[in-house]
Amino acid sequence: MLLEKTIAEVGTLYLEPMAEAKKRLDSLIKPPGSLGRLEELAVQLAGITGNPRPVVGDRVIIIMAGDHGVVAEGVSVAPQEITHQQIPAFLSGVAGIGVLGRLAGARLVVVDVGVAVPVDYPGVLNRKVRPGTGNIARGPAMTREEAVRSVEVGIEVVQGEIDRGATLIGLGDMGIGNTTPSSAIAAVLGGYTPEEVTGRGTLVNDQVLRQKIKVVAMALEVNRPDPADALDVLAKVGGLEIGGLAGVILGAAARRVPVVIDGFITTAAAMVAVALQPRVKEFMIASHLSGEQGHRLMLEYLGLVPMLYLNMRLGEGTGAALAMHLVEAACRVINEMASFSEAGIADLDEDKILK
Amino acid sequence: MLLEKTIAEVGTLYLEPMAEAKKRLDSLIKPPGSLGRLEELAVQLAGITGNPRPVVGDRVIIIMAGDHGVVAEGVSVAPQEITHQQIPAFLSGVAGIGVLGRLAGARLVVVDVGVAVPVDYPGVLNRKVRPGTGNIARGPAMTREEAVRSVEVGIEVVQGEIDRGATLIGLGDMGIGNTTPSSAIAAVLGGYTPEEVTGRGTLVNDQVLRQKIKVVAMALEVNRPDPADALDVLAKVGGLEIGGLAGVILGAAARRVPVVIDGFITTAAAMVAVALQPRVKEFMIASHLSGEQGHRLMLEYLGLVPMLYLNMRLGEGTGAALAMHLVEAACRVINEMASFSEAGIADLDEDKILK
Repeated sequence: MLLEKTIAEVGTLYLEPMAEAKKRLDSLIKPPGSLGRLEELAVQLAGITGNPRPVVGDRVIIIMAGDHGVVAEGVSVAPQEITHQQIPAFLSGVAGIGVLGRLAGARLVVVDVGVAVPVDYPGVLNRKVRPGTGNIARGPAMTREEAVRSVEVGIEVVQGEIDRGATLIGLGDMGIGNTTPSSAIAAVLGGYTPEEVTGRGTLVNDQVLRQKIKVVAMALEVNRPDPADALDVLAKVGGLEIGGLAGVILGAAARRVPVVIDGFITTAAAMVAVALQPRVKEFMIASHLSGEQGHRLMLEYLGLVPMLYLNMRLGEGTGAALAMHLVEAACRVINEMASFSEAGIADLDEDKILK
Repeated sequence: MLLEKTIAEVGTLYLEPMAEAKKRLDSLIKPPGSLGRLEELAVQLAGITGNPRPVVGDRVIIIMAGDHGVVAEGVSVAPQEITHQQIPAFLSGVAGIGVLGRLAGARLVVVDVGVAVPVDYPGVLNRKVRPGTGNIARGPAMTREEAVRSVEVGIEVVQGEIDRGATLIGLGDMGIGNTTPSSAIAAVLGGYTPEEVTGRGTLVNDQVLRQKIKVVAMALEVNRPDPADALDVLAKVGGLEIGGLAGVILGAAARRVPVVIDGFITTAAAMVAVALQPRVKEFMIASHLSGEQGHRLMLEYLGLVPMLYLNMRLGEGTGAALAMHLVEAACRVINEMASFSEAGIADLDEDKILK
């Protein structure tokens, strides 16, 4: 089975190229470590790719789109049809991710893994597992088989893009109502209360927020997902695009390609992927700290450190797109800066440096 | 006098273009405010430039270089000659800012405002006010007249660049030992203790850190700078490049051009500029939160919110360079995203949105 095979293929970071990258970084004309996270990123990329002087080539942002039966509970400001309506704006470049993906030099791949209505825009990959999930406040989102299939869609799509040359993957999501299942996943897998990980999404008012928290609690009560079984969690309280994104992470990690996660939804997908295979964590790069309540806890749970603090809460991969610039910066630093000896500059006084 | 004239020329933000920008942003196909700081940046740029659809044109990073007599007290890991030696690496593009400035699409302008030895590299602007400062642990850094002159150098340089078309300015610094006077400035103008705002700079060990804190305390004790007189503070415990950078901020603000500050040193310069003219704050953009102890306090004091959390501590303008991408992103969003009506997408349910 593709999922099990992919999980087994995920390896660990290559230590030797990491050590070599670290040595190079320490030789450059700057105090050791003074480029902070950029240096850590360069070392991580060396460990992922095996190249001690990592480079960023083709960038692809994979946007998984799906709908959510739970919108029947009044948890969202936006009507469900926006999921479907937004897709042409992604592809024509006038949505948030259209604009920021272009700035990042990334190609967008939009996948219908579970939009409620037929999507026939040219350029959208039709990988629909089912038209929207069930209402998680009343029953499961999908069957276990559908959950597996959604993850496999992500694996197939990302590996197809890697075959076509992608060397850096960003994650994006589209799905009206998808903060609610993401909160439910975070609560189950992270062991948080619904209050801790349920936020305002697209800035809903207090009344809708209370309703969302109630709905998350109902979803957990009605479905009783097993925290030790990520596929059970995904099937019972998840979403099709969340499964697809978990698959993208697994599929990229199995091929040793770095994955930039985005905000709340893609981090819920990351929790699913890590629950299926803890080693994928080493292949992920956190981009931004979302304005959505709970995102900080989820990143802490995963041990990921965000780089951008922009109070964004749009999703679509917009934070991942912005962070690609930082990934490129890390690669530029290790490849383009000179060493002290190359530049003929006096070295630092080792006796005075913090060890 | 140029300084007084420039201080008087600094205006306030234009409110009408800001309101127009805000209205446009709220009409775009995203929940209102969901691009967070990017939207705030676009509105600020509209207020600075008067253009409700702001764009980023020519970017220039101005790097002020100067030396510090206080290195005689053993406060730095690096030998003083590095200030001079690094300059060709900036211009040849192999220093940190050479690499990241190029990635940002920015031109670098390197100014010798106070390097201890003659600098005769082609392309460096010679605006030396004096060859390095005095040792602030034993007496003043410079005279009041020299302090004024250093600020005026910054005004002249930035306004020359604006005349040549610069529309976005980044600040960079080079000066071995310059975290020590920056800490002294932060302590005096911000009302902090030396311990609160003195950090490890280029990662000095505990012994050197203790020495730095002692030296900052000595500098305040020996010189007794007047916290109500920014030029007195700059002259007594400051630095020539810090004065130059304060001048760049004032000169850019007077011409209504946005200025991206960098880390610890340029934020000390920002404190001087704000003390001279509080209105400049509206023209500044914070880039990153430095790894240097005290930077967070200084930004809070100024009311500025950093966007990048990369634990960097290199200076040179590296954080400002990275943030230019975010400034560009903000402009792209307001200019390139479509509105709900333009895209033919259903609008949100206003009744459910947080007011």
